[in-house]
Amino acid sequence: MSTDDTTDTSADASTEPVTDSDGDTTSKCGASDTTTAADAATKDDATTDDSASTSKCGASSGASSTSSSSGCGGAETATDEKVGSTVEDFDADPGQLIAVGLGPGQPEGMTQRARGALLSADHIVGYTTYVELLPDAVTEAADELYDTPMCGEVSRTEEAIDRALAGHDVAIIGSGDPNVYALAGLALEILESKGATASMVEFEVVPGVPAAQSCGARLGAPLVNDTVTISLSDHLTDMPTIESRLHATAKEGFTIAIYNPWSRKRRENFEKCCEILLEHRPADTPVGIVHGAGRDDEAVDIVELGELADLGETDLIDMTTTILVGNEETYVWDDRMVTPRGYESKYDY
Amino acid sequence: MSTDDTTDTSADASTEPVTDSDGDTTSKCGASDTTTAADAATKDDATTDDSASTSKCGASSGASSTSSSSGCGGAETATDEKVGSTVEDFDADPGQLIAVGLGPGQPEGMTQRARGALLSADHIVGYTTYVELLPDAVTEAADELYDTPMCGEVSRTEEAIDRALAGHDVAIIGSGDPNVYALAGLALEILESKGATASMVEFEVVPGVPAAQSCGARLGAPLVNDTVTISLSDHLTDMPTIESRLHATAKEGFTIAIYNPWSRKRRENFEKCCEILLEHRPADTPVGIVHGAGRDDEAVDIVELGELADLGETDLIDMTTTILVGNEETYVWDDRMVTPRGYESKYDY
Repeated sequence: MSTDDTTDTSADASTEPVTDSDGDTTSKCGASDTTTAADAATKDDATTDDSASTSKCGASSGASSTSSSSGCGGAETATDEKVGSTVEDFDADPGQLIAVGLGPGQPEGMTQRARGALLSADHIVGYTTYVELLPDAVTEAADELYDTPMCGEVSRTEEAIDRALAGHDVAIIGSGDPNVYALAGLALEILESKGATASMVEFEVVPGVPAAQSCGARLGAPLVNDTVTISLSDHLTDMPTIESRLHATAKEGFTIAIYNPWSRKRRENFEKCCEILLEHRPADTPVGIVHGAGRDDEAVDIVELGELADLGETDLIDMTTTILVGNEETYVWDDRMVTPRGYESKYDY
Repeated sequence: MSTDDTTDTSADASTEPVTDSDGDTTSKCGASDTTTAADAATKDDATTDDSASTSKCGASSGASSTSSSSGCGGAETATDEKVGSTVEDFDADPGQLIAVGLGPGQPEGMTQRARGALLSADHIVGYTTYVELLPDAVTEAADELYDTPMCGEVSRTEEAIDRALAGHDVAIIGSGDPNVYALAGLALEILESKGATASMVEFEVVPGVPAAQSCGARLGAPLVNDTVTISLSDHLTDMPTIESRLHATAKEGFTIAIYNPWSRKRRENFEKCCEILLEHRPADTPVGIVHGAGRDDEAVDIVELGELADLGETDLIDMTTTILVGNEETYVWDDRMVTPRGYESKYDY
């Protein structure tokens, strides 16, 4: 999904408070004991705590309390996060599960289809930041909101699935698009691991505007030709693979959208990325930087590739930033970043 | 933008009627004589002909009638399409120019921001198919609609700019996103060539859901990791470059979204693409095919890479089709295409 959400799916993005406690939970929903209450208690801005911590959707029997924290906070090794229940643990007729992409984050960036899906959902599940961005009409229409802070994406997705298997119509939300470094795949993987099927919960994906396009729009027209998106998070993809992909695409004239450029734990990845790009592209290649697209702390800048590495230490580049690297033909004009589509080679204008 | 729109920007996509006549025009808008009336007369379903062919937005002086047809229909050489006016030809205070991405095409796939931008525009300019897909509330609110059939993208974009320079607030529309093989860049290039600036018309881009994401959602979760989009149209990018990009990314584990896979004029590109992909990926690699996403003739199939070439001759693959090629880890489960994000290597579920 968007920049924020991609960091949400990256376990080394640890600026949000995380607890490993799996006790003291009051959630009665689904089949697993989740860390809802414990996590919620650590949130700085817990506007939806009440609904989360008093969740009583009930419905399941035979709960096995093996689900624990997401392990977010940086371990490079496997965590103890587990699927706590299987489809056998539920005796209700399953409800529907919809993965909804919110786009840039603000309500006006959402499609009508996304809004409709949220309005018809019984339960809405998501990362706290995104739940807080939902319009009042949507949150008021839902029976329950279930939100957790950053990094609980596996347990949160499982909770959404358990609620659907327990008979509720559930929307699991994220910014951007559910297919861009986001939860659509994880939902299907967890459904399978529970012995359920996608058809059983009428699984559906409602697409949203990805961060690359939100940020591209903010910058002008940087991405109108062949483009690649690469995440610098090496939590789920190893760094040699990321480096190899950067080399392969930087030398082929793709414009490059970089997700997850920077975190406290992996600043080396960003520095390495800048080095690789400079091996293949001139130092004056335009680079667009969008921090916190559409948020209160949005900041936009267009710089040269040669300046990029030094900006890693500034507030402009963090986990909510998306970086768009121009190709050999990209230029800056009137504060806009423009990658020619090639028309000028065919038309006289 | 989306599949349809990408073919719209491809001059060898010639299934729609095209005329080269630049006479018999009744458009009085902007500074150039466009091919509006002549083009409109060839449309099969000309629901908006009246507004287009009787356009009288006026406002410009010193018109020079050098703009002609787009050259669509297949020439590999430069056409005679020219910018017919410069900013000097207009004496009005410029209006606003907004490039609006409609997403998949149906009104419910549009963001609220896109709808708002269309509702506040005086004039809406676009490819006939997309103008016809607009909700009634939007078309009724506009003072004028200006639509042309496929392949008039340069003259249509210039018309939009001329109308803005003549003082009207103009939205130029397309499916998908204005940054994905679409008109955001062309608009900026033509503005520059006219001696105007982006700031002068408060140029803005309203992003939309690109075809890759619309089609990904339809297929499940095929694109949740690093992904590349490549167009097979060699109208504006030469075939050796396209081949080189396919080789470079097919060997790096990217999932690949292929736009403009097929037209009557460049079937060899598709065949060559299938050959290249098979050099780097097993014949049983899952490939998702979405034809006419969200349209009445939508068709979806998941096949194996080894079968893809033969499907080029079927109705499933044409200019409105987007093809999503899985990577080494992509699998098919419960009729969904799933590319694991990598969580399974870190979590036990």
